Amino acid sequence: MAGSTIGRILQLTTWGESHGPALGAVLDGFPAGMEIREEMIQAYLDRRKPGQSAITTARREADRVQILSGVFEGRTTGTPISMVIHNGDQRSKDYGDLKDCFRPGHADYTYFRKYGLRDYRGGGRSSARETAARVAAGAIAVGFLSQMGIQVQAFTRAIGPVEINEEHFDPALILTLPTAMPDAEANEKALAYMKECMAAGDSSGGVIECRITGLPAGIGDPVFYKLDAALASAVMSIGAVKAVEIGDGTAAALARGSENNDAFCLDEKGRTVKKTNHAGGILGGISDGSDLILRAYIKPTPSISREQETVDEDGRPRKLFIKGRHDPVVVPRAVVVVECMAALTILDAMLVNMTARAENVLAFYS
Amino acid sequence: MAGSTIGRILQLTTWGESHGPALGAVLDGFPAGMEIREEMIQAYLDRRKPGQSAITTARREADRVQILSGVFEGRTTGTPISMVIHNGDQRSKDYGDLKDCFRPGHADYTYFRKYGLRDYRGGGRSSARETAARVAAGAIAVGFLSQMGIQVQAFTRAIGPVEINEEHFDPALILTLPTAMPDAEANEKALAYMKECMAAGDSSGGVIECRITGLPAGIGDPVFYKLDAALASAVMSIGAVKAVEIGDGTAAALARGSENNDAFCLDEKGRTVKKTNHAGGILGGISDGSDLILRAYIKPTPSISREQETVDEDGRPRKLFIKGRHDPVVVPRAVVVVECMAALTILDAMLVNMTARAENVLAFYS
Amino acid sequence: MAGSTIGRILQLTTWGESHGPALGAVLDGFPAGMEIREEMIQAYLDRRKPGQSAITTARREADRVQILSGVFEGRTTGTPISMVIHNGDQRSKDYGDLKDCFRPGHADYTYFRKYGLRDYRGGGRSSARETAARVAAGAIAVGFLSQMGIQVQAFTRAIGPVEINEEHFDPALILTLPTAMPDAEANEKALAYMKECMAAGDSSGGVIECRITGLPAGIGDPVFYKLDAALASAVMSIGAVKAVEIGDGTAAALARGSENNDAFCLDEKGRTVKKTNHAGGILGGISDGSDLILRAYIKPTPSISREQETVDEDGRPRKLFIKGRHDPVVVPRAVVVVECMAALTILDAMLVNMTARAENVLAFYS
Amino acid sequence: MAGSTIGRILQLTTWGESHGPALGAVLDGFPAGMEIREEMIQAYLDRRKPGQSAITTARREADRVQILSGVFEGRTTGTPISMVIHNGDQRSKDYGDLKDCFRPGHADYTYFRKYGLRDYRGGGRSSARETAARVAAGAIAVGFLSQMGIQVQAFTRAIGPVEINEEHFDPALILTLPTAMPDAEANEKALAYMKECMAAGDSSGGVIECRITGLPAGIGDPVFYKLDAALASAVMSIGAVKAVEIGDGTAAALARGSENNDAFCLDEKGRTVKKTNHAGGILGGISDGSDLILRAYIKPTPSISREQETVDEDGRPRKLFIKGRHDPVVVPRAVVVVECMAALTILDAMLVNMTARAENVLAFYS
Repeated sequence: MAGSTIGRILQLTTWGESHGPALGAVLDGFPAGMEIREEMIQAYLDRRKPGQSAITTARREADRVQILSGVFEGRTTGTPISMVIHNGDQRSKDYGDLKDCFRPGHADYTYFRKYGLRDYRGGGRSSARETAARVAAGAIAVGFLSQMGIQVQAFTRAIGPVEINEEHFDPALILTLPTAMPDAEANEKALAYMKECMAAGDSSGGVIECRITGLPAGIGDPVFYKLDAALASAVMSIGAVKAVEIGDGTAAALARGSENNDAFCLDEKGRTVKKTNHAGGILGGISDGSDLILRAYIKPTPSISREQETVDEDGRPRKLFIKGRHDPVVVPRAVVVVECMAALTILDAMLVNMTARAENVLAFYS
Repeated sequence: MAGSTIGRILQLTTWGESHGPALGAVLDGFPAGMEIREEMIQAYLDRRKPGQSAITTARREADRVQILSGVFEGRTTGTPISMVIHNGDQRSKDYGDLKDCFRPGHADYTYFRKYGLRDYRGGGRSSARETAARVAAGAIAVGFLSQMGIQVQAFTRAIGPVEINEEHFDPALILTLPTAMPDAEANEKALAYMKECMAAGDSSGGVIECRITGLPAGIGDPVFYKLDAALASAVMSIGAVKAVEIGDGTAAALARGSENNDAFCLDEKGRTVKKTNHAGGILGGISDGSDLILRAYIKPTPSISREQETVDEDGRPRKLFIKGRHDPVVVPRAVVVVECMAALTILDAMLVNMTARAENVLAFYS
Repeated sequence: MAGSTIGRILQLTTWGESHGPALGAVLDGFPAGMEIREEMIQAYLDRRKPGQSAITTARREADRVQILSGVFEGRTTGTPISMVIHNGDQRSKDYGDLKDCFRPGHADYTYFRKYGLRDYRGGGRSSARETAARVAAGAIAVGFLSQMGIQVQAFTRAIGPVEINEEHFDPALILTLPTAMPDAEANEKALAYMKECMAAGDSSGGVIECRITGLPAGIGDPVFYKLDAALASAVMSIGAVKAVEIGDGTAAALARGSENNDAFCLDEKGRTVKKTNHAGGILGGISDGSDLILRAYIKPTPSISREQETVDEDGRPRKLFIKGRHDPVVVPRAVVVVECMAALTILDAMLVNMTARAENVLAFYS
Repeated sequence: MAGSTIGRILQLTTWGESHGPALGAVLDGFPAGMEIREEMIQAYLDRRKPGQSAITTARREADRVQILSGVFEGRTTGTPISMVIHNGDQRSKDYGDLKDCFRPGHADYTYFRKYGLRDYRGGGRSSARETAARVAAGAIAVGFLSQMGIQVQAFTRAIGPVEINEEHFDPALILTLPTAMPDAEANEKALAYMKECMAAGDSSGGVIECRITGLPAGIGDPVFYKLDAALASAVMSIGAVKAVEIGDGTAAALARGSENNDAFCLDEKGRTVKKTNHAGGILGGISDGSDLILRAYIKPTPSISREQETVDEDGRPRKLFIKGRHDPVVVPRAVVVVECMAALTILDAMLVNMTARAENVLAFYS
């Protein structure tokens, strides 16, 4: 309830601060018997690891995950999977200047107002480092979903004004290009744009899109636990996200019903499908069998290399120049975080859904 | 967990179908001792009542609320407030044709795939009528927030391509104009646009904005229960919403850090405030004392007066012409629903927040 | 969180006061497609209905249940099942004297201290009438469990010092004898004991036992949601219960390990079973395939026909003589309540359990 | 939901197995600003540490706690407090024989049936070692409660047939005697009894009582989150507990209303108090200002030094002789666990209770 736990059957609890000794995740409710290896999780963590390109922070973190419980002889046991990532390169001294000063665009002021005190080192709990714990847990969910033929793939759709061209879409590029864009040309333009931003001591935001393919129809719950509502919450809980949309999203507000409705028809195998997918794979909060499409809009990194105006804890105006090491754009590193939050949400909904029909319950227990 | 309950301390459970005998809300955890009158709640329900203008459904529903528990001698008692609204004008026969046929853009298909059966009359549980129960509960939250100087006000920002002009903003118009726009000129244009849509047997979507003023800094919780994440979930759970944004929202993705950061400064009374409000009143998931701004993007009503292609339960292609009585645009009636979901979310976060500091707990119990 | 909702997948919310217009239950998460009839539920409500014998209150309540949602064409739809029971025979005037006076053994004082005000009519929310809502919901759970071959049967084990003799055990008597004992001789003795109590203006408590047969091994969850912990909570939440035990319960504290351990062996069909059942069907919080046995210890009704000492809201000593109409012993009417709380808890655990193994999840979605 | 998390505002998640690398606790929702030191927590852990007397297991565990998050400059920050305890003396080889064999009285069989596989080393997740994590978290709750003048004190009431004499009650002895009894004479008798049990290769159970003094009236919530229901669940979730009672508990079933009712009167300062405390400090699920009294009945340790009959995973009968190192009675070490579970439950209820009255909410935010 205090906010570090999410999910219903599959519950993720994260803990840890940017400059504390470690951070971690406890994933409870994961079904027993799945094969699991630390390398599998590590591969996901490596995707959000800092220091990988010219457009990410120079902070060096190995981000090595260690599984402390819930796995026995290479398989999940059904008990909580506890994972820890030790913090290495903590230059807390970079934050001495910020001790009593509120950085614009950060959570310093709001944490101080809520709690009366705060861990000022690198944002403490509000740091994007917290998402490493989400990725550790999400990697396990992604792995399990893939065994059911469900692929969760996020990518960078835009960095600042540079957007991908759908016609160039090449999924293989997502994991190789520094922008995590599936389009080599857009990648080049985005890098050029970032170079310009960085030269000006500035930062950029962007857009992450996530596509889930292979999801069966019928997943999600009515009313408050609609699949889109659960996804919106899970994705909006990632620090820098300022908007979430499903399918046509904001554009749907401009469309007419006759344009926005997706007609039902039969595919070549006689299965009911939608002719179009303006809905983004969800109708009435429940998956409709089409690809699930969501987009997260990310604000520009608030830590910029320019003097900024602010106020300190004692209510005095201050000029602030943030040193530290910061991502000029968090979008490429956040791609895997969106993917992981989507996967955890989808898997949780699928587990809950197993109980939706009396006939299935009776069959299970007969 | 099955989805009809939302909230942590303040928990709302709704129940009921479009064409069943009644629908209702149970609001648990509301503090004891607040004065409450059915008229207060009724006034809110009247704002979303059908049949009020040329651009809403002709279905006639009195939507009279009756309080069945939790209020004694005009005050809340701390126990669950149960409210019921009886369904009156249920022309279920309108739905006979739709019995085994999936309406495009509706939840017919997804409910059928999830549950194996469905109440086909008017969408059953997935009907927008369910939101009447949310409004009954939300009205109580709005009333309590206003006693704390917190105003929650939503309005229509756009209908299709017609958007309000901020310079014309007159809040008094929201409750009087049929579009719920705070701009008389935009209202006229929107009505003209709707007339054209309706003449073409078509429908429109739009945008609802909600502004919360007077909210103190420090409300909301870290990580998964960020105030924006909770609001995104609460608002996205309203049937037709396809995108939710906070503050500059999608536009933040295009801005640079130096533009998007809100500098802190002192106001004339020496209090820390933000110079601008790109953040929309939330930093790190916690309110920052500025106005909280959110926007919901609403899709066009899927029930249109045109022949549509679809498939039936037996997997046969069908031509469908929806009779019934439908809103050509749901935006004006959904304004109060967004307001209510925001109010419930904010009040819940404020209740949780009372326990955030050890000093406050010690003071309370000393 | 405020306490009127229980369960994880299968969630019951109850609402209503003793002397308000109605009380009710909302049961969410119940699987779709089960046949359901009001008569089935009514039969359970009739078991706890007042006015049925010389040892229950003379208050007359028809306790007619009405289903308002979640059932369509005789089957559950997967959406919340809302049920309402209107209060009829509300002689609130009986409670005028008690308006500002705290009845010993009741919740008057504690509600007043918690909320600052209270509905003084018949205990308001703390009245045992609230359990009618639990029975309405529980009846549905019992019905579904019986389709899986699981029988939940509670009975009166003791009234005051009169205990049943296991050798006389005849389950057919439970529903016919006024004490709900499965032993005609003990029933007679108990009635005689109650006659004596009532003649003295006094009341009695007793013991309810609940046996669940046919429950498969493997139901329940580790650590905090152990099946016995969930049952203890569900049963202790019934107003007058002061102790809950599983299997040998309190007696286990006196036994030695060699006596208390239940050896595993094979039954005639070669299945693993326990030779004895000191554990009461639960090991490590998970069902072991033996009968699940629990007992609830019920305190004597606090409303007695004798003058009692108390204090009023203004802190003045008072002599109190409770008029009204009260059960001299609540045990017989509480039997069905224990049964229903056990059934709801078991069914919820069974639904959660469907997700325990990866192989089952994979099979479900293949 | 999967069972490793408990609480509403104050949420404890535990993780870890008996013979894994470590176990731990994540305590979320703890108010910010409380001073905290590892030594304070360590002192509690030392009370349940093995190897401290002739009647506890010879397993040697330092049980050193390390705080990994949520504390900054010696104070809680409001974010999750993560604590880890590394497992040291893991003689997993002792468990090789038990690999495919179900120990009577343990959770081996039920975990196997639920999950299809299990960590057989020392009970894995079902081991009593899990309670170390509870104690780490509970120590923090106990410390905070004591700042509010609330003392939570548990002690051994009985070991097998040896019960304490109330007249000898000396709380100072609880922390010094090996039995955790507050009675030196009973301690001697209990040690003699245990010596006899151990000589016979047998084990014993017992009774733990917990008294909470200084708790204000008004704490707890109606219906399903009654304070006694929450305590019953929290305490029953401790592995070996087979019964929980409040106040007179099981004895209340034998009493008459005139005996069991606690009259209200005024104390010397004119405050409303109860003349007696049969209720054990809870009326209608809410604290009444008297001492809160609860008792947990503990079964004898199932690991005994005698040959036992059992069955293996392949359904073959087996003779079993458990080697390993086991507590012949877990009662003395479980005392602090009961204390901690009670403290966590009480503190959570107190946090929730801060929101019970509208006047308090208004005052907080004015």
